[in-house]
Amino acid sequence: MDELQAPETLEGWCLLHQMFRIRFDRLAAHTREEREAMAARAAEALAAMRQGENGTTALSTLLGHKGDLMLIHARRDFAGLQQAQLDVARLALAAHLEPTTSYVSIVELGMYEMTAQIHGRLLERGLKPGGVEYADALEVEMEGQRRRVIGRLYLDIPQRRYVCFYPMNKRRGEAKNWYAVPFAERARMMLDHGKIGRKYAGEVNQIISGSIGYDDWEWGVDLFADEPVVFKKLVYEMRFDEASAWYGEFGPFYTGLQFAAEELPKLLAGEVPLPIG
Amino acid sequence: MDELQAPETLEGWCLLHQMFRIRFDRLAAHTREEREAMAARAAEALAAMRQGENGTTALSTLLGHKGDLMLIHARRDFAGLQQAQLDVARLALAAHLEPTTSYVSIVELGMYEMTAQIHGRLLERGLKPGGVEYADALEVEMEGQRRRVIGRLYLDIPQRRYVCFYPMNKRRGEAKNWYAVPFAERARMMLDHGKIGRKYAGEVNQIISGSIGYDDWEWGVDLFADEPVVFKKLVYEMRFDEASAWYGEFGPFYTGLQFAAEELPKLLAGEVPLPIG
Amino acid sequence: MDELQAPETLEGWCLLHQMFRIRFDRLAAHTREEREAMAARAAEALAAMRQGENGTTALSTLLGHKGDLMLIHARRDFAGLQQAQLDVARLALAAHLEPTTSYVSIVELGMYEMTAQIHGRLLERGLKPGGVEYADALEVEMEGQRRRVIGRLYLDIPQRRYVCFYPMNKRRGEAKNWYAVPFAERARMMLDHGKIGRKYAGEVNQIISGSIGYDDWEWGVDLFADEPVVFKKLVYEMRFDEASAWYGEFGPFYTGLQFAAEELPKLLAGEVPLPIG
Amino acid sequence: MDELQAPETLEGWCLLHQMFRIRFDRLAAHTREEREAMAARAAEALAAMRQGENGTTALSTLLGHKGDLMLIHARRDFAGLQQAQLDVARLALAAHLEPTTSYVSIVELGMYEMTAQIHGRLLERGLKPGGVEYADALEVEMEGQRRRVIGRLYLDIPQRRYVCFYPMNKRRGEAKNWYAVPFAERARMMLDHGKIGRKYAGEVNQIISGSIGYDDWEWGVDLFADEPVVFKKLVYEMRFDEASAWYGEFGPFYTGLQFAAEELPKLLAGEVPLPIG
Amino acid sequence: MDELQAPETLEGWCLLHQMFRIRFDRLAAHTREEREAMAARAAEALAAMRQGENGTTALSTLLGHKGDLMLIHARRDFAGLQQAQLDVARLALAAHLEPTTSYVSIVELGMYEMTAQIHGRLLERGLKPGGVEYADALEVEMEGQRRRVIGRLYLDIPQRRYVCFYPMNKRRGEAKNWYAVPFAERARMMLDHGKIGRKYAGEVNQIISGSIGYDDWEWGVDLFADEPVVFKKLVYEMRFDEASAWYGEFGPFYTGLQFAAEELPKLLAGEVPLPIG
Repeated sequence: MDELQAPETLEGWCLLHQMFRIRFDRLAAHTREEREAMAARAAEALAAMRQGENGTTALSTLLGHKGDLMLIHARRDFAGLQQAQLDVARLALAAHLEPTTSYVSIVELGMYEMTAQIHGRLLERGLKPGGVEYADALEVEMEGQRRRVIGRLYLDIPQRRYVCFYPMNKRRGEAKNWYAVPFAERARMMLDHGKIGRKYAGEVNQIISGSIGYDDWEWGVDLFADEPVVFKKLVYEMRFDEASAWYGEFGPFYTGLQFAAEELPKLLAGEVPLPIG
Repeated sequence: MDELQAPETLEGWCLLHQMFRIRFDRLAAHTREEREAMAARAAEALAAMRQGENGTTALSTLLGHKGDLMLIHARRDFAGLQQAQLDVARLALAAHLEPTTSYVSIVELGMYEMTAQIHGRLLERGLKPGGVEYADALEVEMEGQRRRVIGRLYLDIPQRRYVCFYPMNKRRGEAKNWYAVPFAERARMMLDHGKIGRKYAGEVNQIISGSIGYDDWEWGVDLFADEPVVFKKLVYEMRFDEASAWYGEFGPFYTGLQFAAEELPKLLAGEVPLPIG
Repeated sequence: MDELQAPETLEGWCLLHQMFRIRFDRLAAHTREEREAMAARAAEALAAMRQGENGTTALSTLLGHKGDLMLIHARRDFAGLQQAQLDVARLALAAHLEPTTSYVSIVELGMYEMTAQIHGRLLERGLKPGGVEYADALEVEMEGQRRRVIGRLYLDIPQRRYVCFYPMNKRRGEAKNWYAVPFAERARMMLDHGKIGRKYAGEVNQIISGSIGYDDWEWGVDLFADEPVVFKKLVYEMRFDEASAWYGEFGPFYTGLQFAAEELPKLLAGEVPLPIG
Repeated sequence: MDELQAPETLEGWCLLHQMFRIRFDRLAAHTREEREAMAARAAEALAAMRQGENGTTALSTLLGHKGDLMLIHARRDFAGLQQAQLDVARLALAAHLEPTTSYVSIVELGMYEMTAQIHGRLLERGLKPGGVEYADALEVEMEGQRRRVIGRLYLDIPQRRYVCFYPMNKRRGEAKNWYAVPFAERARMMLDHGKIGRKYAGEVNQIISGSIGYDDWEWGVDLFADEPVVFKKLVYEMRFDEASAWYGEFGPFYTGLQFAAEELPKLLAGEVPLPIG
Repeated sequence: MDELQAPETLEGWCLLHQMFRIRFDRLAAHTREEREAMAARAAEALAAMRQGENGTTALSTLLGHKGDLMLIHARRDFAGLQQAQLDVARLALAAHLEPTTSYVSIVELGMYEMTAQIHGRLLERGLKPGGVEYADALEVEMEGQRRRVIGRLYLDIPQRRYVCFYPMNKRRGEAKNWYAVPFAERARMMLDHGKIGRKYAGEVNQIISGSIGYDDWEWGVDLFADEPVVFKKLVYEMRFDEASAWYGEFGPFYTGLQFAAEELPKLLAGEVPLPIG
């Protein structure tokens, strides 16, 4: 048990993704005035969810039958997410929002390299993994890391036009099993994997969130870009790196156009909402 | 057939997990008075299910589209569970509770180590596995064990704020097959697995229940904690131990906030219910 | 083609399992008198399905969201099953019974040992497999077997309180493939498998039915016991025998409480129906 | 590319299987006169689909929750199938027929042996695979075959009482992969497979149809017999032959009782319809 | 990282496939005049989506329960697709179009050979992969390629009568894993794969689109032909080539008859619409 297994992680925003199909057919049964009032109230409520330090809610359309609208709620804690879920459920508009799926996760920085470095330092200081002193020293180190990357743990949701969300696992196959690969090898593969991400750094922003213990896949990935073709190029290129080729398992993909809450009435009226800003 | 295969188990509460989506859109069709009356009656009925020695029913919210409300019924027997299911189904509120899934199991202590010890003792006494004397002596031993751990078999549902439920299997792959691994190796892996659990002992309470013969996975796991991030850390760390990495298969995860039945009207009115106590 | 492949089988009752969710919410829209009349007529119709030599219909509750009511129809032929299905569909109550799933099969005795013995006898008599004389002699032998076990082919449905149903396959994997295992090895594994069943003989009754050609798994298994914990112990212990560990694949599990048709109104009124007898 | 890969095939009827659940609960909302009129019109329309050379439509009940009614439409082309689909969809009765699934395929004779023989003949004549002359000569040969088996490509749907339908694939596993097996070995396995079919020739009629490019499995299989137990015996025995044991993958199974369109009103009135003829 | 991994790709039309079940039963509740007005307006709106350089929308029927109508929208960008989705959703007819599934992708030319050639040229010029100069020179080369194949990137949707759509993946198995195969081997297999396609060049038109990052499979394939039997022959033959046999994974197949928007009222009235032109 002395060897490194799970890398340390740091956590930020709690995230709830909600996907809805807009029932335009049922909306049409209302008068135009009713529809507009409903849309205005929903837009107002969602706009009020932008609360800076306390979190925010981002809106995007979705392409295809998996939904027409995706909400990404970022909150300080699960109670905040639950309240957001309830607030949406109780909108008058919610009667015309059919939930198709959702995703629960927490923004996460996985720290393979840093874990190895800290571990090395603590060993040098003569501390023994599993011991109380080791644990205390590790906590101090992690707290330092946490302060260093706090901005990435609680980052603003990037306001780029195109959004792509998908969940993923590391494979636990009978032959290829990520969780049975030695730490150093996993660290090396994650380093290579990260290099591809960095190639696209200017073009794509990503948010990785951990969902082990909360939802049906292990991680959620949100990508934001000005051109959707970048998603394809990035994910395709990554598919060839060792960590993804042998160990990556990918869930359903959701893609759409981000827009400000104030544009929601336009979407409900059947027009593509304008980009943010 | 003389060798140990299945470890002995001890059984406690019968458990029924019920997950429901609350149809807030349909609730909204009622007058406020009707809604409040419905909520009050449901809260009262669920509160009355806390019956101490005869079992209890715990409530929690759920995050995401898999449901808004989870009920965990603990009862002395299956008739008790069936009555709980019927009692919920016949609430006026039930017309607005859409069942999304459920889980049937019995609280179980799997006893790898103890089975091996008892087996050793009985062999020393010259008893032969498969024989009547061996079976009788085993029963006496198990009854002793049962008295010793009765509190864990019929434990109160921990009242911590956050709840996580998931079902799981031991893999029966073509190469990696838990049920073809020798008893001693399985016992060793379970021991290692348990050590991780004990590291989190102060932070997490868990209830393991067996569902072989009752539901679609082999075990159900309930975790209770004061902070949800602990679920992620615990389950992630466990994923690297040998028993989980090679042999653990995990079903859907459900997570939410535990609350007292008396707070149900608040949830139905769209507010996050307060924690217990 | 001279070697034994498929064991001979003997067939009895045709079986149709029907699982239904009872829509208590819709039932509540009727007046009490209407509900009671509907329940009484349904109870009467189902009670009339106990027809001795012509078959019977057993009722049980179900725990969880997979259904509230399971009917097991045993009939002489498929036309009888189809008529039972139609009779249930045309009950007034059927408007409140949502079919969740079903299973079509025929009670089957698989005869590994007997097939080998008969084969041996016919070879000794100089008959050649594949020839007409062999086929005729085999038919005579099988007819004898059939008379010997007729009671097991057309057995009454055991009236024990608890019921467990699940479908299963023999694995046809790329490495572990039951259908590519030599007959003698399969026969040996089935013999071992049967021994576990016999250990529980007093506590559990089982009905094995074949569904190859009729439904999505290869066999259906019904277990009946006075205590549901026996299902868990039996199925868990069996999971370690060679035939199950490497070759058994298990579908969804359904469990509930058996009751007499006359008790159906009680169930519909929200009470756990009494056991039979 | 000179070696044989795909065997030649000959095509006949275009087939559309449609499975429906009959909503008896909704039918019950009509008056008896309305129901009878609706049933009579549907029966008449379906009877009119028996058009001899232009195709036909066969009806059968289905056992279990997968449906109550299966229609097998055989037509000269896809436009004919589409028209049949539209004709059924526009029946007044269709409001009470819930489509549960369907299958699109074309009657197909796969010709492993014949392909090898023709290939041999063409090689002897000095023709080179891939060349124009080879292709022309192959077409002439296939046209001859086509004339020879035209009756099997456009056979009448056998009028036996019991029907069994299932789709299937040839496995494309990582180790066992039908499409990577040499032609000669595949041909040998298909020959053995066919021998089992011939053993049952008097008892079962089968229709094989190809669905690669049209539906989610590669082939559809329809079996017709006077006794349903034959389906079980045939499919079970086949499961042990090499082609099936290692390479056969089987989809859902549908089984029921065939009847003439004129008997449809009886089915809708809740009685088992009489056999054809 | 110096070795070639992902081949370069060129992108054209953004594609959205939408599959709908037509609810003929609900349409029947309207008067004939209402139905005809609804149909005429929908036909007009869909006809207006043929916009030449700005994209188009192709219509086809579908056979079976997966839908009755498929729309293929080709647009310059995702905003265009989103607008098409909204325009369809807001048709009065949409209340009777039940979305069954959809697919989001971008027309893509994968360029294994060309990538290798360009790579060779750049190496000869002394450029180093990963460097800025290499990247710039690559972009120039790709822009040249793009101009060369612009017609294939923005091709008109072929107006042939029969349509077949299916999504597919390259396998990422534990033993057979496309993404771990060296570039040169993948290039060779894709070349062989392409040869089969070319054999059918006169009979079938195909559109390949990439969906990595947008939808649940990696590519979408549309085939267009004058006779549907060609789909079966082409896909079957391809199934034996190395790239498909070991590495191709295929999703659901959709097939139907293409027709012009002006023929939609005929379809809604229950007749097979005429072919285009």
